[in-house]
Amino acid sequence: MARVRVTLKPTVNDPEGITIAKALGRLGFESVDQVRSGKYFEITLDEDSEPRARRQVGEMCDKLLANPVIERYSFDLEGA
Amino acid sequence: MARVRVTLKPTVNDPEGITIAKALGRLGFESVDQVRSGKYFEITLDEDSEPRARRQVGEMCDKLLANPVIERYSFDLEGA
Repeated sequence: MARVRVTLKPTVNDPEGITIAKALGRLGFESVDQVRSGKYFEITLDEDSEPRARRQVGEMCDKLLANPVIERYSFDLEGA
Repeated sequence: MARVRVTLKPTVNDPEGITIAKALGRLGFESVDQVRSGKYFEITLDEDSEPRARRQVGEMCDKLLANPVIERYSFDLEGA
């Protein structure tokens, strides 16, 4: 399984994250400095080769899961 | 920093994930079995104590970031 995280680039404004940070502050979580919001995908793959799985998931991110103009991604592979 | 992942519980239908899995199949990624979609948050905390940070992030998830009826969450802490 691939666990993919897609986040906005640091220079891109993140109104959802800002809103959540403010809401957490109002709930009493005063230690919160910043929140950045993003997307998360768990992809189950039928692929035995770890290098091939890694290359495929990178291509999935480039082609569909992330918008390269404003987002960046990272992922881990788990299992076979 | 806390890296929080919020996903739908396994029994909850995930139309976004199903749509993404189909789209990946159409793009030629035939090894994709299943996609589950979720949310991802990076929370920067001003908290030196790791146990306190862990407790606070758990409370943030319970109170705001996740809907306990249909979602579950997990997180890692990084740094101080």
